[in-house]
Amino acid sequence: MASMKAQNAVSSFIRDRDWGQFHSEDNLSKSIAIEAGELLECFQWGPDFDPALVQGELADVLTYCLLLADRLGVDPDQIVLDKLEVTRLKYPVEKARGQSDKYDAL
Amino acid sequence: MASMKAQNAVSSFIRDRDWGQFHSEDNLSKSIAIEAGELLECFQWGPDFDPALVQGELADVLTYCLLLADRLGVDPDQIVLDKLEVTRLKYPVEKARGQSDKYDAL
Amino acid sequence: MASMKAQNAVSSFIRDRDWGQFHSEDNLSKSIAIEAGELLECFQWGPDFDPALVQGELADVLTYCLLLADRLGVDPDQIVLDKLEVTRLKYPVEKARGQSDKYDAL
Amino acid sequence: MASMKAQNAVSSFIRDRDWGQFHSEDNLSKSIAIEAGELLECFQWGPDFDPALVQGELADVLTYCLLLADRLGVDPDQIVLDKLEVTRLKYPVEKARGQSDKYDAL
Repeated sequence: MASMKAQNAVSSFIRDRDWGQFHSEDNLSKSIAIEAGELLECFQWGPDFDPALVQGELADVLTYCLLLADRLGVDPDQIVLDKLEVTRLKYPVEKARGQSDKYDAL
Repeated sequence: MASMKAQNAVSSFIRDRDWGQFHSEDNLSKSIAIEAGELLECFQWGPDFDPALVQGELADVLTYCLLLADRLGVDPDQIVLDKLEVTRLKYPVEKARGQSDKYDAL
Repeated sequence: MASMKAQNAVSSFIRDRDWGQFHSEDNLSKSIAIEAGELLECFQWGPDFDPALVQGELADVLTYCLLLADRLGVDPDQIVLDKLEVTRLKYPVEKARGQSDKYDAL
Repeated sequence: MASMKAQNAVSSFIRDRDWGQFHSEDNLSKSIAIEAGELLECFQWGPDFDPALVQGELADVLTYCLLLADRLGVDPDQIVLDKLEVTRLKYPVEKARGQSDKYDAL
């Protein structure tokens, strides 16, 4: 993630509007949860969905995620890769294949 | 976002475990909301936070976002940039600067 | 809702622990969203669920709702009834029967 | 909670519209999370809030909670009281007073 292009575009958009003052870590985390609720609303009554609508709501979640990563001074790509290594230890291929159980129930 | 490196690593992780069967669009959207709740928990009682914990929870939200983008066949970077253009029209710099109001209240 | 018994029990539980200081309206709203995420986790990979687990998570959401109502000085029962009247106007029986569409799409 | 009055009013509202078919446990849990996100939006940029707006969003969360309790065949009041007994064991007054730490960090 966070090809420089998208992350830079989002950051400069915020800077131009002087919105950084509202973007504390806790406000951005609330914003991610709010947008995740809007994404979920696309599936409120079942699995069928409007692709354009879902794409737009996913973009909103991602945008606030990029802003929070920026605020924390971390690279979105790198934290995903780092977390994947932790998950890899919890869910070895041979035990986890085809299972949706939590690691402590495998 | 979605430098090929992180998105590819996540996708191959899922493929190795045969987890794609659980990753319908609605299940991934639920997963994003669930992880967003865990991120929010880092700020449940106030703005102070543990950076490592927040980073790990943000990584979980981002990981499911990448998987949903992959499932939808869209590029995470591109949908963020596309949405930014929509937001740009709703929040012109001269009206929105320093305001946290919604566009219809500006 | 809010038979006096449950609401009183919850309020006195909080008072005994001097937790009211953490229960600002925004912290309680975050808490509701966090617990709603845990409830949703019971259904992360599909519609099957563990009844005892769902009941416990629903109780957590309800508990924070009671505390927020208490904090706002409103009666949980009454606000549900008040909102029902608003919804009744948006969704007349003859138009809404058997439809999951939003009122503006009916 | 769940004075018969509010719970009955909500249930008959749903029955009149033949909406029970959409109200599976997982759809109701998604609905609770969606409405919790709307409640959280009242506090997106800070602790100040519009009381009428918060009250309306809280009512929406509570309404779906009542519907889920109804669907599960449990009494909302009783499950709150039951859960309170579990929490009481985790957070004894003498250890928990004035602390917002999780029980395993007390």
